[in-house]
Amino acid sequence: MAYRTTASRIDRDQALRRHILACAHARVVEGGFAALTMQALAEDAGIATGSLYRHFGNKGELAAEVFAQASQLEVDSLAKVLQGEGPAAERLARGLRQFAARAWHSRRLAFALIAEPVDPAVDEQRLLYREAYADLFCRLLEEGRASGEFQVPSISLTAACLVGAIAESMVGPLSPPARALREAGHGQDDFESVCSNLVIFCLRALGAGQPAPETCDEPARVR
Amino acid sequence: MAYRTTASRIDRDQALRRHILACAHARVVEGGFAALTMQALAEDAGIATGSLYRHFGNKGELAAEVFAQASQLEVDSLAKVLQGEGPAAERLARGLRQFAARAWHSRRLAFALIAEPVDPAVDEQRLLYREAYADLFCRLLEEGRASGEFQVPSISLTAACLVGAIAESMVGPLSPPARALREAGHGQDDFESVCSNLVIFCLRALGAGQPAPETCDEPARVR
Repeated sequence: MAYRTTASRIDRDQALRRHILACAHARVVEGGFAALTMQALAEDAGIATGSLYRHFGNKGELAAEVFAQASQLEVDSLAKVLQGEGPAAERLARGLRQFAARAWHSRRLAFALIAEPVDPAVDEQRLLYREAYADLFCRLLEEGRASGEFQVPSISLTAACLVGAIAESMVGPLSPPARALREAGHGQDDFESVCSNLVIFCLRALGAGQPAPETCDEPARVR
Repeated sequence: MAYRTTASRIDRDQALRRHILACAHARVVEGGFAALTMQALAEDAGIATGSLYRHFGNKGELAAEVFAQASQLEVDSLAKVLQGEGPAAERLARGLRQFAARAWHSRRLAFALIAEPVDPAVDEQRLLYREAYADLFCRLLEEGRASGEFQVPSISLTAACLVGAIAESMVGPLSPPARALREAGHGQDDFESVCSNLVIFCLRALGAGQPAPETCDEPARVR
């Protein structure tokens, strides 16, 4: 009996933890990590601030976990495309378009993940996830080099360059000032332009020549 | 008389502020922002911790100022090369080699500036300085496009990609684990390889073709 009580309590604890993380994720989607205060989160989750601290030692720890969950989803989505069918150059182009479309689809979250100034615990996670992205590109570059599509002297350094170029290409267009400009009708960077320029930059950098012309379809929900 | 006393006091205050910043810079050069604690800094500077707080409200503010001073030096050094004489592609290659050499020359500082997890106040500065670097590249890209050297559809997006690629190419080789490996004789990324791969990546990405073969001279103090 004592065992069953304990087990059900652990279940309840885990369910509450998931509920808190879902509420925290929603806050970051809406207003970035700046909107993730412990007090507002406790209100959203319908619990006392003290209960929050039973599950997460501090805001940095919580933010790092929100970051890691959201980033893992991006890494998995990208991996699926990069490890799919077809020539390496095509997979890279598809992966870049999907990454950009997902970022565009949820701009505030994407900016929060890539560049929002935030707790060092999140910066730690950023370093780890940049390595996860680099690992995906290393694998693709090996394949593309083996098939003769890519002319890449150093796989690891080139993978790092890709990670940096992709992340940084998103920072400006996704930043809150750029978003405000766009919403006021003064936006300069549209999705199509960001996307095609990024694909051209990356494929050329790999010595893969010009990509075949293909339209970047901005996801329907975005407009 | 009262005026002169005040003026000399302001001079002394400014001299002490510069002294504190120089000591703080030295700590970051040695051990990154992790080594920049207020107590250790006060000891280095030979003042009481309380006096430190009269000049800098908190550690984040101090770290941000150390970051900004060190980064401005890098931006100015790069600007000098990028705005020098010769074809745009050559200036870019020279600028990249100089940037990499400076980073290699002071690895712990370079890693601290580019990627060390640190106070959000430093992250804010990182965003600003990434824009400063992007502005330099925008100007160079305009010139290279006008001269027919670069085939670049979007100047601003391409400049952002360059900033990201360059920064990220440095993170791995400069990171403390990589440094430890090198010092133990297991290093994989040598300066020559990082440097030439970065130049190839960037020039090809701009449609500038292969760079002329040129040796990257690693600065003497590094080895």
